[in-house]
Amino acid sequence: MLIIAERINASRKTIAQAISAADRTFIQGEAKAQTLAGAHYIDVNAGTFIGEEAEKLKWIVEAVQEVTDLPLSIDSPDPEVIRAMLPLMKKAPVINSITLEPSRIEGILPLVTEYRTKVIALCQAEHEMAETADDKVRIAGRLIETLTAAGVPLDDIYIDPLVYPLSTNPQSAGATLEAIGGIMKRFPGVHTVCGLTNVSYGLPARKLINRAFLAAAITMGLDSAIIDPTDKHLYAMLKAVTLVVGKDDFCMDYICAFREGRVE
Amino acid sequence: MLIIAERINASRKTIAQAISAADRTFIQGEAKAQTLAGAHYIDVNAGTFIGEEAEKLKWIVEAVQEVTDLPLSIDSPDPEVIRAMLPLMKKAPVINSITLEPSRIEGILPLVTEYRTKVIALCQAEHEMAETADDKVRIAGRLIETLTAAGVPLDDIYIDPLVYPLSTNPQSAGATLEAIGGIMKRFPGVHTVCGLTNVSYGLPARKLINRAFLAAAITMGLDSAIIDPTDKHLYAMLKAVTLVVGKDDFCMDYICAFREGRVE
Repeated sequence: MLIIAERINASRKTIAQAISAADRTFIQGEAKAQTLAGAHYIDVNAGTFIGEEAEKLKWIVEAVQEVTDLPLSIDSPDPEVIRAMLPLMKKAPVINSITLEPSRIEGILPLVTEYRTKVIALCQAEHEMAETADDKVRIAGRLIETLTAAGVPLDDIYIDPLVYPLSTNPQSAGATLEAIGGIMKRFPGVHTVCGLTNVSYGLPARKLINRAFLAAAITMGLDSAIIDPTDKHLYAMLKAVTLVVGKDDFCMDYICAFREGRVE
Repeated sequence: MLIIAERINASRKTIAQAISAADRTFIQGEAKAQTLAGAHYIDVNAGTFIGEEAEKLKWIVEAVQEVTDLPLSIDSPDPEVIRAMLPLMKKAPVINSITLEPSRIEGILPLVTEYRTKVIALCQAEHEMAETADDKVRIAGRLIETLTAAGVPLDDIYIDPLVYPLSTNPQSAGATLEAIGGIMKRFPGVHTVCGLTNVSYGLPARKLINRAFLAAAITMGLDSAIIDPTDKHLYAMLKAVTLVVGKDDFCMDYICAFREGRVE
């Protein structure tokens, strides 16, 4: 299970404040905590700093790379911002994210192939938010076709079928889960990835819902997730579900996590 | 999600002691607590009292029916014990359980049809503990064929694909999960049911594993479970997973559980 750590995102108040105040120690603390907690990539996002996104993200990238050896997930919809970050990378990053929208294909795909990065591809087309499982699988197919035709290996593609709030549509998460199963079955070798926070928007006890959704998604074949690995209950559930679905040989990963005090 | 409450089982020390001491108040307390916690059936088991099972189970049945209006799940492999309980039932019970073993088919099936009860059917044949998903689905098919041929409606059949300890075979739970998906897809209208405790045997933080397995099983289509509904974390996860898989219209069941203080 690949973990992309989500905390360094300017949409979070404390992160936005730290960026505004150029509080390097705070950002570095977040990077270190997530590294220690078992992240494989550190996501970096300065999207709320409109007009200053590239400048702020560069500052974050430099701060984070000083304290962790992990590769980064460059989280921006803007090809120019991504282009400005790529030469700064100490390790091959993941670009988060591309869609089927022509401006993003034209702007971002050449960067993926030039820098041979991994890429998160959202199930979103120009005039379409895919809402049903069939729509999501169909758009995933078009994304995979477009990316592989440009030379991106299947193993570098992380399809995000997207999940919308259950409070708006109680079937939305079910469609995403079915899509994960469909994508993993129909396109063997590709990866699936998902963020969790949308799913519980507007409902009480959100972290419980996020945890339940992660458990269900892993059951359907999800092999990477954009999560907060410092969330102890979420991390414990991730390890336990990975175990029950048969992806933890000899139960070793679970038992190690237990010995480290990471499960209950 | 149908909940069969598992606590009144003589394999639990406190229950065995209460049975031995004829502590009616204790047994009735367990029945009331599980009823309040949202059970749909109260399982009753006196299996460890060899030679006295019928007598002890009769005492339990009478005690429990004094304090709850819920129907019971008569938990015994012995046709004679089940036969002795059936006339005592105030509501149509579920018989737990039948298998393909000839002695159980011959002894128990006539009781199911005579008393028109629901029945839990274990994926277990005479010389075979089904371990792979394919074996479980195949045996489920034979059980369904046998039961429906005798006139048992599909809606009264609860197939238990059985789960074995992960500590013995890390693939065992995955096989059960795959079987649940296969059975629900291949035999529409039938129910699946499962106990959880076996899966975590021999591993640390067992309740976390049980919770993860329940979440995964509901994701695969499980629509009933033999659980302890007074386990708050387990119950909360059950409600949250039922929500994310799209089986909670308008999120009402989840929101009600939240208002009752049952989720986190």
